[in-house]
Amino acid sequence: MGDLIRLLRKGLPAEAVLTDPDVTASYATDMAGFCAAGNPAVVVLPRTVEEVRHVMRTATELRVPVVPQGARTGLSGAANATEGCMVLSLVKMDRIIEIDPVERIAVVEPGVVNAVLSRAVAEHGLYYPPDPSSWEQCTIGGNIGTGSGGLCCVKYGVTAEYVLGLEVVLADGRLLTTGRRTAKGVAGYDLTRLFVGSEGSLGVVVRAVLALKPAPPQQLALAAEFPSTATACEAVRRIMARGHAPCLLELMDRTTVRAVNALGKMGLPESTEALLLAAFDTPRAQADLAAVGELCTEAGATEVVPADSAAESELLLKARRMSLPALEALRPATMIDDVCVPRGRLAEMLDGTAAIAERHGLTIGVCAHAGDGNTHPVVCFDPADPEEARRAKKSFEEIMALGLELGGTITGEHGVGLLKREWLAREAGPVSMEMQRGIKGVFDPLGLLNPGKVL
Amino acid sequence: MGDLIRLLRKGLPAEAVLTDPDVTASYATDMAGFCAAGNPAVVVLPRTVEEVRHVMRTATELRVPVVPQGARTGLSGAANATEGCMVLSLVKMDRIIEIDPVERIAVVEPGVVNAVLSRAVAEHGLYYPPDPSSWEQCTIGGNIGTGSGGLCCVKYGVTAEYVLGLEVVLADGRLLTTGRRTAKGVAGYDLTRLFVGSEGSLGVVVRAVLALKPAPPQQLALAAEFPSTATACEAVRRIMARGHAPCLLELMDRTTVRAVNALGKMGLPESTEALLLAAFDTPRAQADLAAVGELCTEAGATEVVPADSAAESELLLKARRMSLPALEALRPATMIDDVCVPRGRLAEMLDGTAAIAERHGLTIGVCAHAGDGNTHPVVCFDPADPEEARRAKKSFEEIMALGLELGGTITGEHGVGLLKREWLAREAGPVSMEMQRGIKGVFDPLGLLNPGKVL
Ligand SMILES: Cc1cc2nc3c(=O)[nH]c(=O)nc-3n(C[C@H](O)[C@H](O)[C@H](O)COP(=O)(O)OP(=O)(O)OC[C@H]3O[C@@H](n4cnc5c(N)ncnc54)[C@H](O)[C@@H]3O)c2cc1C
Ligand SMILES: Cc1cc2nc3c(=O)[nH]c(=O)nc-3n(C[C@H](O)[C@H](O)[C@H](O)COP(=O)(O)OP(=O)(O)OC[C@H]3O[C@@H](n4cnc5c(N)ncnc54)[C@H](O)[C@@H]3O)c2cc1C
Repeated sequence: MGDLIRLLRKGLPAEAVLTDPDVTASYATDMAGFCAAGNPAVVVLPRTVEEVRHVMRTATELRVPVVPQGARTGLSGAANATEGCMVLSLVKMDRIIEIDPVERIAVVEPGVVNAVLSRAVAEHGLYYPPDPSSWEQCTIGGNIGTGSGGLCCVKYGVTAEYVLGLEVVLADGRLLTTGRRTAKGVAGYDLTRLFVGSEGSLGVVVRAVLALKPAPPQQLALAAEFPSTATACEAVRRIMARGHAPCLLELMDRTTVRAVNALGKMGLPESTEALLLAAFDTPRAQADLAAVGELCTEAGATEVVPADSAAESELLLKARRMSLPALEALRPATMIDDVCVPRGRLAEMLDGTAAIAERHGLTIGVCAHAGDGNTHPVVCFDPADPEEARRAKKSFEEIMALGLELGGTITGEHGVGLLKREWLAREAGPVSMEMQRGIKGVFDPLGLLNPGKVL
Repeated sequence: MGDLIRLLRKGLPAEAVLTDPDVTASYATDMAGFCAAGNPAVVVLPRTVEEVRHVMRTATELRVPVVPQGARTGLSGAANATEGCMVLSLVKMDRIIEIDPVERIAVVEPGVVNAVLSRAVAEHGLYYPPDPSSWEQCTIGGNIGTGSGGLCCVKYGVTAEYVLGLEVVLADGRLLTTGRRTAKGVAGYDLTRLFVGSEGSLGVVVRAVLALKPAPPQQLALAAEFPSTATACEAVRRIMARGHAPCLLELMDRTTVRAVNALGKMGLPESTEALLLAAFDTPRAQADLAAVGELCTEAGATEVVPADSAAESELLLKARRMSLPALEALRPATMIDDVCVPRGRLAEMLDGTAAIAERHGLTIGVCAHAGDGNTHPVVCFDPADPEEARRAKKSFEEIMALGLELGGTITGEHGVGLLKREWLAREAGPVSMEMQRGIKGVFDPLGLLNPGKVL
């Protein structure tokens, strides 16, 4: 331990090496409930690639496990400390190095906050689509680590679609460059995409070349009220089957709607069983919205309310983004599922989740990136009541089992982390797990990088 | 050898195992010039996943190298046989298993021809974007193997963007399932993307889940004539900087234009130094084209001719698709480069290529996916003249060196194969090569799959 700190300080300024136990303890967990976490031996906050390399060389020399961290908004425990580990926080590496409108790329350090990048590229008439609801906090490094999604992914895809190239510090401190800064490139194996979603277990991202899109027209939204989740899901089916390309297609169940009203006084319609939000950023947004509104009505919507203005649309989005915090406010603790099913099975997923809630006598509110079939059932419970906590855990897992049964995946965007490790093995099967472990061994033969996560 | 055939026949029907040397020799090469190829010991044409597994089990048992093949339209020798290998042709596995408009996916076997799939999904109002100019011949398996691109990629991206999940037979015959059939999913490492572009060196793709888009409106095109490649490239810069999203932005140099006229009597304007084709499939294609036409004029175009109709637009595309065969017809042999540079460096790339042609006294026609910065300099030569062949090889390599110098990649879409192996090492560097070799070792520890390709 004394050795570790002394060696670290050889390549890092004093203020970048935190050892006060009260301080280091505050870096122990991300936002996932119910995940084990240990006490970090030390927290380092490098500002340069060289400093990160020094950190990893030191870790390898002394065989100290390293947990990379962004803003710790993760929802699967992937950034949780292990006992005696070194926390490697990238938040001080937060420079936007370049924004190029001709190449439509941004080059950034990993600690850049998602919303900061979004605003910076907007000034150049550009758009960085991946927009997790945590965008005002979460970092690009964390987004790459988890392969995060967001509201606009139904039209624009997820983080993996926007990472062109990376610089990565490997476990032993060597620097690996992957990918490219050109629009296309297929030279060798796609190491770039291998890092996206690898949750800090293969290397530390210290720089990223990101693809940008031209900024689309401002989006216009509508809200449709449904008498049941089944009818709302039928609307989703019809909208997608008709070839529409909404830039947002979100569902909030009754519990979520009420929770959002309670937290934010948003004035959402509380009598509805399911609220569907749709938005278009097309040149003919109004016409597209009208067509989608009709499909909603045909599917059984009791009310379809187009936003009158961009400002009103923004308000609807804000309400949707508030879903998780609002549901979290309902009870002392929550566990947030992230099951993604084929769109055509969404109704079964939601009805099944309601049945699970009922059976266990729990509140489970659901918000969903409905256009992607990606549901977030939020299991609300009191950890002080061990019996209730047990039921919460049980239902959290039953929801994943249901997702797999419906041909879905245990995680659409939040990642595996600690929370879903056993479930990854169930979903992927033994051959895939063997290959994944083999890859881990190639990049991190000593098993120092974020041990116990993903695999 | 007797053993090999006998064992193969245990799990394959007689007509699926070809041993006639005249026949097997006809499977020796793809469409790349200048690449070594050996004689296959046997060619197998399985029709089922089980048969492919039997083939790979047999190969592993007897330690016989296996070269997977699609339609052999590849341009880097990646499908070339090695001496005494088993050629595993997937062309008989050509069923489209499923097309689902709600999920917007197709599930296909690897031997499905790209254009066949495109037409089949069009009947459902859907669209499979990746459209290599070889689309009437090349297979989805080959497209996945090479990570192929095409004309529409400037708007829609390349094959990697459209592969959601795979079934892969590993070197030892085990079956690996990767990815998903849902819109999103981040469970574990992205093995799916690892296979895209791996040129048959990690496993044999036997089934793919592909993402589809709603069919866009029919595209409208224009052709703009420029007095120099530099002015044409300046137009490309302006078009991209202004936030336009053309679904095609192609450049043909003077040599290419003339070659296409010679081959296809297309009536393209021969006096021009560079012809730029742009197309839009937006709801306001005419207005978008007009704006782009103006940018062309501002950049120095001498003539801008919008197509009057979809049919005329289709004709322009046809002319562009004819570029490679037309340049190939100029001389007995060609070598086709595939360098992709940042858009802003396109003019330097083209001028530099012209200088290389001049210096070596060779004809090098260039067509380019200009919007992506992806150029295809086609080096024309006579292999019967060893001196000329030497200069051709030299200039082929100087073009790659120039691409790297300009911050580009040696291959935008055709892959590494045999042709660019040394160049991959130059581009990727030793750390990346070590990681890539490690990955190869995880999937194919005996080195039986497409040996000598990529790495
Ligand atoms: C209110 C709320 C709403 C959310 N909404 C969404 C949403 O809509 N969509 C969504 O996808 N997620 C959402 N999330 C989850 C979370 O915000 C994302 O997973 C986000 O990408 C995490 O970023 P972070 O910077 O907080 O990373 P962290 O949580 O700190 O880390 C995440 C993972 O990435 C690794 N990591 C971090 N930086 C690096 C690096 N530089 N190199 C290598 N590995 C690294 C960590 O080790 C860890 O495994 C939400 C979370 C909250 C609290
Ligand atoms: C006239 C012409 C125009 C072209 N235009 C373009 C273009 O615009 N864009 C572009 O990207 N390319 C283009 N190409 C190149 C070529 O068509 C593509 O690379 C195509 O993807 C190859 O497909 P194929 O079926 O012919 O595969 P093959 O050439 O048979 O094989 C290509 C690679 O994939 C591997 N492979 C094949 N099937 C499988 C499988 N099932 N599992 C694992 N590995 C497999 C092979 O081992 C090999 O490494 C063009 C070629 C020609 C001749």
